[in-house]
This record gives sequence, C-alpha cells and structure tokens, in this order.
Amino acid sequence: MTEKISRFFRETAPATPCLIVDLDVVADNFTKLNNALPDSRIFYAVKANPAPEILRLLVGLGSSFDTASVNEIQDVLDAGATPDRISYGNTIKKASDIARAYALGIRLYAFDSIEELEKIARHAPGSRVFCRILTSGEGADWPLSRKFGCEPAMAHDLLLQAAGMDVVPYGVSFHVGSQQRDVGQWEQALATTAKIFRDLEEKGVALKMVNLGGGFPTRYLKDVPTSEAYGNAIMDALRKHFGNRIPETIIEPGRGMVGNAGVIHSEVVLISRKSANDEKSWVYLDIGKFGGLAETMDEAIQYPITTEHDGGETQPVIIAGPTCDSADVLYEKSDYRLPVNLRIGDTVAIQATGAYTTTYSAVNFNGFAPLRAYYI
Amino acid sequence: MTEKISRFFRETAPATPCLIVDLDVVADNFTKLNNALPDSRIFYAVKANPAPEILRLLVGLGSSFDTASVNEIQDVLDAGATPDRISYGNTIKKASDIARAYALGIRLYAFDSIEELEKIARHAPGSRVFCRILTSGEGADWPLSRKFGCEPAMAHDLLLQAAGMDVVPYGVSFHVGSQQRDVGQWEQALATTAKIFRDLEEKGVALKMVNLGGGFPTRYLKDVPTSEAYGNAIMDALRKHFGNRIPETIIEPGRGMVGNAGVIHSEVVLISRKSANDEKSWVYLDIGKFGGLAETMDEAIQYPITTEHDGGETQPVIIAGPTCDSADVLYEKSDYRLPVNLRIGDTVAIQATGAYTTTYSAVNFNGFAPLRAYYI
Repeated sequence: MTEKISRFFRETAPATPCLIVDLDVVADNFTKLNNALPDSRIFYAVKANPAPEILRLLVGLGSSFDTASVNEIQDVLDAGATPDRISYGNTIKKASDIARAYALGIRLYAFDSIEELEKIARHAPGSRVFCRILTSGEGADWPLSRKFGCEPAMAHDLLLQAAGMDVVPYGVSFHVGSQQRDVGQWEQALATTAKIFRDLEEKGVALKMVNLGGGFPTRYLKDVPTSEAYGNAIMDALRKHFGNRIPETIIEPGRGMVGNAGVIHSEVVLISRKSANDEKSWVYLDIGKFGGLAETMDEAIQYPITTEHDGGETQPVIIAGPTCDSADVLYEKSDYRLPVNLRIGDTVAIQATGAYTTTYSAVNFNGFAPLRAYYI
Repeated sequence: MTEKISRFFRETAPATPCLIVDLDVVADNFTKLNNALPDSRIFYAVKANPAPEILRLLVGLGSSFDTASVNEIQDVLDAGATPDRISYGNTIKKASDIARAYALGIRLYAFDSIEELEKIARHAPGSRVFCRILTSGEGADWPLSRKFGCEPAMAHDLLLQAAGMDVVPYGVSFHVGSQQRDVGQWEQALATTAKIFRDLEEKGVALKMVNLGGGFPTRYLKDVPTSEAYGNAIMDALRKHFGNRIPETIIEPGRGMVGNAGVIHSEVVLISRKSANDEKSWVYLDIGKFGGLAETMDEAIQYPITTEHDGGETQPVIIAGPTCDSADVLYEKSDYRLPVNLRIGDTVAIQATGAYTTTYSAVNFNGFAPLRAYYI
C-alpha cells in the first residue's frame, strides 16, 4: 500500500468495501514494462480495470489497448485513443459486434477458427488478423483452459486461408496464462510461433507480428520475477527462434499493469467459531467472492491481507464474505493467519487488488451494492 | 418453458442474453409449497431473485420473506409487506445494519455465534432470535460449507445465554443445502433440533419455532421429488421427533419458488474446433459464468439447454461464455450434447434459470452489460 492510498483512506474515510487505486503506480508499471521490452508495443488489457481514469492515463503515456467487447472499444476511444491503437482481441465476437468495431475504425482482430475468420473477412474487410494458438499454461496461478486458441497446425492452415480472403494475415498470438510466474514459458510458445512464420513464408505468406499476450504477474503472497527478468527471457527466446529477423511484437499486460496499484479496504463484520474447541476462527469481511474477489475461486489468487495489528501474535483463520451463499468463502485451505487482536469493526487492507475486482463484482447479489472505487 | 414465455420471446424479440420469468409459475410454486406444508409459514428467500414484480406477487399471495441485507429488507417493504413478515436471516450482519433493520421494524433475526447475539441484543433489543445449526449438506448439488451455523452443543449454550439477554430465544434454524434432492435430509437435522428444544425446556427456556430453511429444488437435468414428497417427509420427521407438540415452522424456499419460472435466451456466438480431429465442438454463447450463470461453478448446477433443432442428430460439446476469461467455461466435464444443425446466430434456451442468475451477474466484466430480465 502506498502512502498516497493510506492518506486518502485516513482523510476521506470512505464507506467500505472500497477499492483505492494509486495512478502513480500504474504509470510506474507502464514505464517498467516499456523499459523491459523497449521494442514491444504495449496493449493494455482493458478488462483488468476499465476505469476511465486508468484509460486516460495510459492514453497519455502512449499505450495501445487490447479490448474484449465493443463497449470496451468505446471506452478507450472516449479516453482519447485513436482506433489504430486498439486491438479487438476476443476470439469470440458476434458478427454485429465486428461490424460495429469496424465502423469505429478498428482494423486489428484476433481469431482462432475458420468460422471467426469468415466473420471478420465479411464484416471488417481489409483488416489485419492474428491467430491465437493454444499453450499449456503451466506455471500460471489462474487456470488456463483450452477455451482460446487452436492447435498450431490449424493456425498454420487458417493463416494460409486468410491470405486468400479479404483480410491481411498479420501474425500469431498466444497467452501463457494469467499470473505466470515462470519466465521460461514464453520460449516454448515462441518456438512454435517461429515455425509457423517459417512454414508460411515458404508458401509466400509473410507474417509480421507476434502478440506475446499477457501473463505478467502482480506480487501477491509469493514473490514474482521482475519486469526485467521477463523482458530478458522473452528477448532471449525471440533471438533464439527468430535470429536476426525478429518480428514486430506486442504485449498485453492487464494484471501486471494495475494489480499492485490498488488496495481494497474492508470491514470485519464478524469473528466467530463453530464450536468451543474449533482450531480456526472464521473471519467474515464485508466483501467476498461476489463483491469483487471472484479470483479467490478455488483460492487461485491469494491476496496479502494487512491490518492495524500486524506484528503481534497471529492465529489461523478461515476468511469468508458477507453473503448468504455457502460458496462465498475466500480462503479455507490456504494457511491464512490474522492477528489475535483483530476485532469486529476493524478495517483490513486487501493488497494488490487493482486488477479483476471492480468489474467482476456482482450487480446486486444479496442486495449488496457493487464495489466502489477511487482513482487517485 | 411455458407458452407465455415462448410467445413473449417470439413477439417481442428482445436482445440477448435475457431472462424471461413467467409469474404464473411463481404463483403456482407458492401454492404447491403452501399445500405441501400447510402449517408452515413461507419466507421467500429474496436473494434467489429480488425483482420487484416477484416480491409484489408474493406479498399479494401472503408470503413472508427471508432477507440477507438491509437493501433486501427495503425492497420487500417497498413491495408492500409489513415488517412482521420479514426475517433478517443472514448470520453475518454489521452492527449498523442491525440498527437500521430494527429502525425499519424488523424483529426476527438469525445468529450462530455469541458475537452476533451480542450485536442483536444491543441494536435490536427485545427481538426474537433463532440460532442456526450446522448440517452435513449431503445430497445437495450446490456446495454447503461450514460457513453458516454452529455445532448443536454451542447452539444450546447460546440460546441459554440469550435467555439472560434483551432478546427472545425463539427457535432453531438449519439449511440442508441448496438443490437438496434427498427428502430424508431434514429428518437428521430435526432430530438434533428436537434435542435442543428438550434440553432447553428442562432449563426453563421454551423455544417456539423451527426454521426448516431452503433446499427445495428446481428440476434441472435430473428428476427431483415433488413438493408433496418433501412435505410428507418433513411432516413425518416432525411427528417422529416432536410427537404431538410440533412447534411453529417456517420454510425459506428460493430456488424452489422461482427457479423453474425463468428461461434465459442466448445467442450462439461461435461454434468451432481446436484442431481438425477434435472430438468435441466448442459452442460459445453470449452469456457465461460472469453474466449470470455463476452456478455453473464446478458444473454444480446443470441447466437443460434447448434449441429449435431438438429431435435431430446431436454431438458432444463444450459450452463456454463470451468473455476473455479462461475460467468462463460452463460445461466441459458434463456430457452435454447439442444438435449438429445448431448454427452461429441461433438462439438457445437455458431452462430453469429464474433463480440465482440476474443478481449474480457481473456489473461490467469485459464490458458486457448485466443480464436483462423481463417479468411477465
């Protein structure tokens, strides 16, 4: 937590739960990522946090934007970006949404199937397209399913077909998994990508761009490598597999751009036990799985939680949210501990919650309002 | 799907995704539950679907209401119910919310810990309180954690303590788990409850009420017993354990009141494969885990999905939502099949989605708007 966030909370005393984001940290993350991969264009993954304050800041810093929907495209345009700085990166798009994006000037689209490619060629003619390939996702904290991407052999065939359609086969994308803590994961995907580039070049199709995706982590409970470590590993892999013909590259940080910039403040509603001899206390907060902390699903993302009593004696706890839903338990298997002096009514700080919180929050579950947020 | 819902969708052609709820089905469910347990008061679990149209209908039918927050209490009052028909059933309440509920006239509160009991005695003096006990939750499709309730021995002690405080120890509640398909689960909990009643009576504390909770199911893919079967099993268990001194009882149906009254209509955005020889197709809908179908978590609730092509040849499918989140996959392990004739742009009907959908939907995830709903 930055001093700026502490001061704001102290002086403004906003109602809890609330998220406070320090925009200076976002700017600092942008600079570090830019320095780590100076030849890559940064496309901020808007879905991580689409607050206008963040979008306007990043527009000013020169960022480009990866978007998931027409509403996100509109938000980025409203923040002042030109359409050439926007990628429509969702591989699942309604034909009508592609047409709307095209009308807004968007000319860069993701796909991973012939069906989607045909939609783009019809509704966004002449646009650049990139094909997403499957990766293993090993080493990532947030589960990576086979939902996005296709097998490399299919990607090869689709890009070849694209060359005969009214689109520009522009490149290949992949995603190594969100909160990826193994810097080596990009190497394997780049080896596959380089082979697709070579095979297609032999057939007269010259791809130009590799979209290195996201995956850049935020520091939660476990240490993560620095931006420089990611940059070095990726540059090494690019040189190894593309030699001195390194293509244009883009990266799509979301969590890595805003995660550590935000802190959620939450009130302790209840601390209790289920029987006289329970080993663990239950600590119930006024925010839970449905109020913005959806990424605690299966305890995947483990946020550091700090209190005013830190430094003293602690006890093992189970942490849960305020709704009448049995599934609204944040941490039960993970070994969370909180101070024995923590009391009902105290405020706790849930650290590194700038990404994937506000927009995940349910619209009205159990009558609880969505997460309020302040950008300072 | 009722004829009324079909006709509304056909004639109105609302944008998808949308939920359409047939209020006649809700009224019919109320009557059936009322007939199945004629001596029990029905407290509708507002969290299942707090739409004003549903609340007003149930107020008119004579229902009472189980609420999870002050906002829900306010919604029920706005729908025309008097405060004596409202229970504040959440065991996790801020002191300030108890005070607000008390000011609104609420005099019936749940608790499961000494800490919560003390809050109620201080901020809602003179109110009736009931203590929730833990149950096993076996046989329920939606996971029941140890989040709510305490061990029976602790419940006994807390109700005894309550007798010495400024509250009325009124009864015991339990919840056998949501979508409970085993009618026998109530019996075990009632045996425990009856013992608490007897033990406290010996100490001069006469409890009056058993809150039988919810758990009444909706028919999804698997058959469920009728309301009558639940009613008979519960009445048998009450007679067995309370003899001819059966206490006042209340039930809290949520899913059982509105689940089968609603149908979500969704557009097929994409049907594709990941490689030339994939066995299953991926079918992507315009609604997913974060747009209202949160109960597909771990594929717990399996909604029937119907299409205009039903009756012909089918194929195995994986079904996913429209967001750029790898976790937004609805059914992968369950053996869902859809017609081979299903096409991109077709509409599918996700049946029995009247409960736990609209309010679970994320406020703006990936730029997608919350689920729209129509009550007809």
